[in-house]
Amino acid sequence: MTERTLILDCKNKIGEQIKICGWVYTRRDHGKILFLDVIDRSGMMQVVVSAIHLGGVKAHLPGELRPQDVVCITGQVNKRPEHLINKNIPTGEIEILAEDIEVLSKAEELPFDMGGKSLDLQLPTLLDYRSLTLRHPKVKSIFKVQASLLEGFRNAAKAIDCTEIIVPTIAASSTEGGAEVFKVDYYGHKAFLTQSPQLYKQMLVPVLERVFVITKAYRAEPSVTTFHLSEITQMDCEIGFAQFPDLLDLLEKVAAETIKHAENQCKEILNEFAIEPVAFGKIPRLTLREAQELIYKEFGRDVRKEKDLSRQDEVDLCKWAKEKHHSDFVTVTHFPTKAKPFYTKPDPENPEYSLSYDLLFRGVEILSGSQRINDYQQLVESIESRGMSTKDFGMYLQAFKYGMPPEGGFSFGLERVTMHVLELANIREASLFPRDMERVDIRLR
Amino acid sequence: MTERTLILDCKNKIGEQIKICGWVYTRRDHGKILFLDVIDRSGMMQVVVSAIHLGGVKAHLPGELRPQDVVCITGQVNKRPEHLINKNIPTGEIEILAEDIEVLSKAEELPFDMGGKSLDLQLPTLLDYRSLTLRHPKVKSIFKVQASLLEGFRNAAKAIDCTEIIVPTIAASSTEGGAEVFKVDYYGHKAFLTQSPQLYKQMLVPVLERVFVITKAYRAEPSVTTFHLSEITQMDCEIGFAQFPDLLDLLEKVAAETIKHAENQCKEILNEFAIEPVAFGKIPRLTLREAQELIYKEFGRDVRKEKDLSRQDEVDLCKWAKEKHHSDFVTVTHFPTKAKPFYTKPDPENPEYSLSYDLLFRGVEILSGSQRINDYQQLVESIESRGMSTKDFGMYLQAFKYGMPPEGGFSFGLERVTMHVLELANIREASLFPRDMERVDIRLR
Repeated sequence: MTERTLILDCKNKIGEQIKICGWVYTRRDHGKILFLDVIDRSGMMQVVVSAIHLGGVKAHLPGELRPQDVVCITGQVNKRPEHLINKNIPTGEIEILAEDIEVLSKAEELPFDMGGKSLDLQLPTLLDYRSLTLRHPKVKSIFKVQASLLEGFRNAAKAIDCTEIIVPTIAASSTEGGAEVFKVDYYGHKAFLTQSPQLYKQMLVPVLERVFVITKAYRAEPSVTTFHLSEITQMDCEIGFAQFPDLLDLLEKVAAETIKHAENQCKEILNEFAIEPVAFGKIPRLTLREAQELIYKEFGRDVRKEKDLSRQDEVDLCKWAKEKHHSDFVTVTHFPTKAKPFYTKPDPENPEYSLSYDLLFRGVEILSGSQRINDYQQLVESIESRGMSTKDFGMYLQAFKYGMPPEGGFSFGLERVTMHVLELANIREASLFPRDMERVDIRLR
Repeated sequence: MTERTLILDCKNKIGEQIKICGWVYTRRDHGKILFLDVIDRSGMMQVVVSAIHLGGVKAHLPGELRPQDVVCITGQVNKRPEHLINKNIPTGEIEILAEDIEVLSKAEELPFDMGGKSLDLQLPTLLDYRSLTLRHPKVKSIFKVQASLLEGFRNAAKAIDCTEIIVPTIAASSTEGGAEVFKVDYYGHKAFLTQSPQLYKQMLVPVLERVFVITKAYRAEPSVTTFHLSEITQMDCEIGFAQFPDLLDLLEKVAAETIKHAENQCKEILNEFAIEPVAFGKIPRLTLREAQELIYKEFGRDVRKEKDLSRQDEVDLCKWAKEKHHSDFVTVTHFPTKAKPFYTKPDPENPEYSLSYDLLFRGVEILSGSQRINDYQQLVESIESRGMSTKDFGMYLQAFKYGMPPEGGFSFGLERVTMHVLELANIREASLFPRDMERVDIRLR
């Protein structure tokens, strides 16, 4: 029995007898000859099938083969005729002349055509058939970019000396207040799914000083938009002995390196999605008020009294940063203290504003964070001033009783970053199995 | 203002003026001189403090300093006198003579002594004060090993060409049947926390062929033991176009490399825990029945009619493997089909037994898995034969309708591996914030 050869490795086996295994992607009938595109994890291969070469016993097979059939094909690797070369794929100069075909698993007839360059389906259909639609090369490639973003983030976090931690997702009280929280029946007790790893990563600062975590966060948002999911993946860092300017340096470094890593690893995919190279000029930094002045001056819109950036503000600021600073990123700091969570440190020079920051990328906020309150008494006052009870923060406050250095951190949403790096229309496309109020794999209503 | 120097980097700064920042770990009073051990993320430093060197303004400080105070200390790096050298730590030949001390955050008086080599507390106290007890060097080092196991697993999974995936933890039905499942109120609908990533990773085989995932798994086990948690971290691989012998090769490779990576990276910690080097001889493979025969022959216990291995069986098999094969691992295969989940493939040669496997390590199962049923019809029959409804597996079965190759995979529990690599007495010690039926940070009753 011939050993399996990965499709990509066939490039170096011209003239040799090999066996490939994979899924039939498309079939094109040309009279007595059938062309198959076969996919495995390494790439795509054109296979030429004719009943004559297959011999008598399997002569019926070509007629029965259909997309998504799982096959092993034995044959010779040949150079393609000059006029059939496909320069867009790494195996575009070769093909296999099938001498034997083994069908390992038959596929049902597909409910829609999967052979096009894009999979042009409405979102509900894309998700109703998620096990199938994920197989389309362009859909699948979204998740190769996602895997690369995960790797890039971890590399960047380790490069700034963060240790990886695992934090719980079931908690006894809602982390940041608010109603948008999922309840769990926990052995008859009331518990919640965590809205973020925030409190736990802070508690680890006095343990490991610099930590990173990739974990789930849950938001029971009772609304359907193109940019919210009920279950997301957060990539977080938390850093001890860091003051505000250090934190800005570190967040910009981690964010840029995460995206740069994916860009370097996934060049072909980004081309396929027609994504422009990212501009990595020095990232401009503006306070919210400076940003609003800039928008007034450059774009003629007076938003100087707003408490936050609107989506249009984010778009305009990024446009300005790209043109003036050759940067696809802008950092905006000093949002109003009242609009930020209780652990956010107010600016000592003007406590109405906080030592908080958002990182914008191509018109959208992809990362946010802040310097944190590290003084126990100030933290207790901040919790109480928001009408919350310190009783719900017992283990968290303990960390501040026993010595907490100045510290801060930041947080990315993986699906959101994936969505914006690939310019997808809907965040659901950036999640293998998206969770929202209408769907848990199957539709809920 | 002097820039901060990491403690470990002081080794190369003898005679220089530096500033270190960290936590006071211990204080030892010697009359007019005070010795502090100060910890930061890189190591521990002995600091010599005397009121004279600190000068008038801060002369009161040494008397007030206590463990866990957060300090920045400026002074000169000196060689220690010969008789005070500590060869057990990388900074044992130097010390700092304090000339200025800045207290960034005061700690309350500790509820127990944290200065010993081990933290000898009862488990409830260890967990009631988790934010504090995690700071003890020996407790903290458990989680450095854990981070290293995570990295080792990812490296090993990538080395066999697996792509990282993110799978959901909220599902519409319980993944593997059984009552031990947490219920979530999902926008008024009934949903569950997933018991494992099993079904999702299988659905990804036709997409990416080889995948790995690190994710949460939840088990509502209404029992308190030393080796169960309600929320665990699973490290899983799933591999397409793999037959049973391939799967055995791959699981042994991934498991051994994961542990080898942690062993290489954490030599000092493993010494501290008095852990013997792992024996990486060729891993012996036995079927369950062969293993039982061996136990009968070598250890005189007749367990030949049992359906599973007992804990004593696991201990004996590992003892045998260590002595006869210089291996701390043993692979046991072919457990009874009825004892395994519905997706486990029965051995075609004897369907009473299944193509399943456990990997034992030093007397305990740390990994398990199987070749899976990849035929749609056989899978439907297996689900129905166990009294479950195919309606609950809609999206999962879809993946098998459209072409699924022979495939299989395996799964580690991160906390369990951490526990056994470090020979901890209780799995709760291997989780930063363990979840069980009695505790969610605070005690539930």
